[in-house]
Amino acid sequence: MGITKNASLKDIARKLMWASDIIIFVHQNPDGDALGSSTALAKTLRGMGKTAYVLLEEEVPGYLSFMDTDCCTLDRNCIADPDVCICVDCCEYSRFASIADIYDKGKTKLCVDHHLNDTGFGDFYYIDSTAAAAAELIYKLIVALDEDITRDIANALYIGISTDTGSFKYSNTTADTHEIAMNLLRVGIDHNDIIVNLYQNKKITEVEVQSMAVNEKKMIAGGKGAITMVTAEMLESCNADLGDAESVIDVLRDISGVEIAAVLKERGDKIKVSFRAKSYANVAEIAQKFGGGGHVKAAGCTLECGKDEALAKIEASICEALK
Amino acid sequence: MGITKNASLKDIARKLMWASDIIIFVHQNPDGDALGSSTALAKTLRGMGKTAYVLLEEEVPGYLSFMDTDCCTLDRNCIADPDVCICVDCCEYSRFASIADIYDKGKTKLCVDHHLNDTGFGDFYYIDSTAAAAAELIYKLIVALDEDITRDIANALYIGISTDTGSFKYSNTTADTHEIAMNLLRVGIDHNDIIVNLYQNKKITEVEVQSMAVNEKKMIAGGKGAITMVTAEMLESCNADLGDAESVIDVLRDISGVEIAAVLKERGDKIKVSFRAKSYANVAEIAQKFGGGGHVKAAGCTLECGKDEALAKIEASICEALK
Repeated sequence: MGITKNASLKDIARKLMWASDIIIFVHQNPDGDALGSSTALAKTLRGMGKTAYVLLEEEVPGYLSFMDTDCCTLDRNCIADPDVCICVDCCEYSRFASIADIYDKGKTKLCVDHHLNDTGFGDFYYIDSTAAAAAELIYKLIVALDEDITRDIANALYIGISTDTGSFKYSNTTADTHEIAMNLLRVGIDHNDIIVNLYQNKKITEVEVQSMAVNEKKMIAGGKGAITMVTAEMLESCNADLGDAESVIDVLRDISGVEIAAVLKERGDKIKVSFRAKSYANVAEIAQKFGGGGHVKAAGCTLECGKDEALAKIEASICEALK
Repeated sequence: MGITKNASLKDIARKLMWASDIIIFVHQNPDGDALGSSTALAKTLRGMGKTAYVLLEEEVPGYLSFMDTDCCTLDRNCIADPDVCICVDCCEYSRFASIADIYDKGKTKLCVDHHLNDTGFGDFYYIDSTAAAAAELIYKLIVALDEDITRDIANALYIGISTDTGSFKYSNTTADTHEIAMNLLRVGIDHNDIIVNLYQNKKITEVEVQSMAVNEKKMIAGGKGAITMVTAEMLESCNADLGDAESVIDVLRDISGVEIAAVLKERGDKIKVSFRAKSYANVAEIAQKFGGGGHVKAAGCTLECGKDEALAKIEASICEALK
C-alpha cells in the first residue's frame, strides 16, 4: 500500500497545462467517484480554456443521473487527435477495455488513481492507494494546477469522496479526507441536495432487489460470512438492472458478527462478485485468487461458470479466509 | 437559530479551571453525543487533576455499551459539594428531571449545548444551535482550556459528532464539523472500531425483519406513499421482537418519490403505526386523526381493529393527505 509514481501531481499538472485537447477515461460501470473526479477535472480543464471530455463506455447510471455530467460523452471521436489522455480512478486497460485504443491515441498518456498498482500505468502516473477517493487526488491536482475550486467542481468532488468513503465511514477515510471535505464545504456545496440524491432517493427497484437478495442470504463460516446471489431472474422480476444490486453488499456486511460479505451478480454468462470485509479480513486477496482485485476491504472479481459452482467457490474461499 | 450566551467558551473554561469538584449532566436516554461530549469533558478535567463525574439517570444504553464510560456514575452522592455543575447537550431541567436538584447544588452552574434555547440556562451558558453536535462545542472548550486532546478524548468526541450528524450526512454538518473531525483523526482515533460499533453491528433479526417487511410493501398514492405491515407471524419466523422492526420505516421513506411512509406493527390485538414524511407532508396531523401524535416528520398512533381494516384506514388517510 502506498504511492506508486513516476511523476508528482505537479508534474501531471504541467502536462495538462501544456495540452489543448484532453480526453479523460474512467472505469466501466462508473461510480460516484469515477464520475465525480473525472467531471471535476474536465470542468477545471474547460475553465482553463481547453477542450476536455470524459469518454464513457456506457450511459451514466440512473442513480447518478442527478450529477452534472455535461462534459461526459459516449462519442469515441469526441477529440480526433488528443494531446493528453488521462485515466482517473482506474489504472488498467481492462477496466476501460472497449475504449483502450482511444487512450493509446494520446500523445501523452497520464494516470491519476487510488487503486493498488505496483507497476504504474501510462507515460506519467501518480497512484496513491492511501487516498480514500480519486476525487481527493483530483482535488490536489486542481490545487497543483493553481485553479479555483468552483461550486460545481466542489459538488462533483464531494460526491466522489462521499460515495467512495460511505459518507466518511469506511476505513479509507483519513484526516486529509476531512480536510478536503472542509474545504469543499467552505466553497459551498449543495450538501443537502447531494445527500438526498445519494442516500434518500433510492430507486424502488434497488430497494426491492435489496430486500429480495437479503431474504435469500446464506450465513456461512459460523456467522462470520454472509453471501447471496442476485440472479438475472430476480432483476427481471423487479424490472431492475445490475446497478440496483450495488447496496446489497452493505446490508450483509452490516450484520453483527459478519466479517466478510459477498454478493454474486449474474451478468450474461458471467458472475460478477463483490466482497466487503468489516475489520480484519483482506478481501483483495480472495478476489485476486479469482483474477480480480481491489482494496483490502472492498474488492471484486468475475467468474465464468454456473451459478451454483460460483456460489460454492466463493463460499469455500470465504470460509478458508476466515479459518 | 444561532448562539445564545452570557459567557464565551473561554469564560466557561476559566470557571472550570478554578473548580476542583465537577459534576457533568446530560439528558435522559443519553445518545452518542450526550455520552461522547460529557465523557470527553470529564476525561479532560480528570487529566487536569480534578474530580469529575458524568451523573446519569439510567444505565448506558446497550448500543453504546462499547463506549468508555468509566467516568459515568448513577451515584447521586458522587460529589457531596460540587464546585461546578455543568450540563452538556441539554439546557432544560425537564431533560434531567430526576437529578435536577443535584445540578442546583453546584456553587457555579454552567451549560454548554447546541439545542435551541432563547433564554439561556444556569449561571453561565454558551448555547450554539449552529453546532452539529455538543461534541463540537466541547472540542472547542478543551482547546479553550488549553488541554491536549488525547486519543480517548478524541474517540469520545468523534462518536458524538458522528452520531449527531448521521456520519456527516445531516444538514447540520458544516465545514467546522469536518475541521474538527480532521483534527480528531490527526490525534488518531479508533475510527474503524467506532464505525463498526455504531453502524455495522446490526442484529441479524433486524435485518431479516426489514427485508421481509420491505418485500411486502405496497406503494400507494401514485408512488408518493409506501406502506407495509410487520405481523406477529413475521416476527416469530425471524425470532425477532418489535424493536427489530424500528428501521423498516426509514427504508420506505428513502424510496425515491415517497413523501409519506407508514409501517403497521401487530402488537397483541392492537396495531401500532409509525409514520414518516420526507419533505413537505405533516404526518403528525394524520396520527392525530387516530388519537396519536408526534412531530411533523415522525409521528405514530395505535389502532384497535383487524389488520386489514387498519391497513385500509391508514392507506386512505395517507392518500387523503397527499391529495
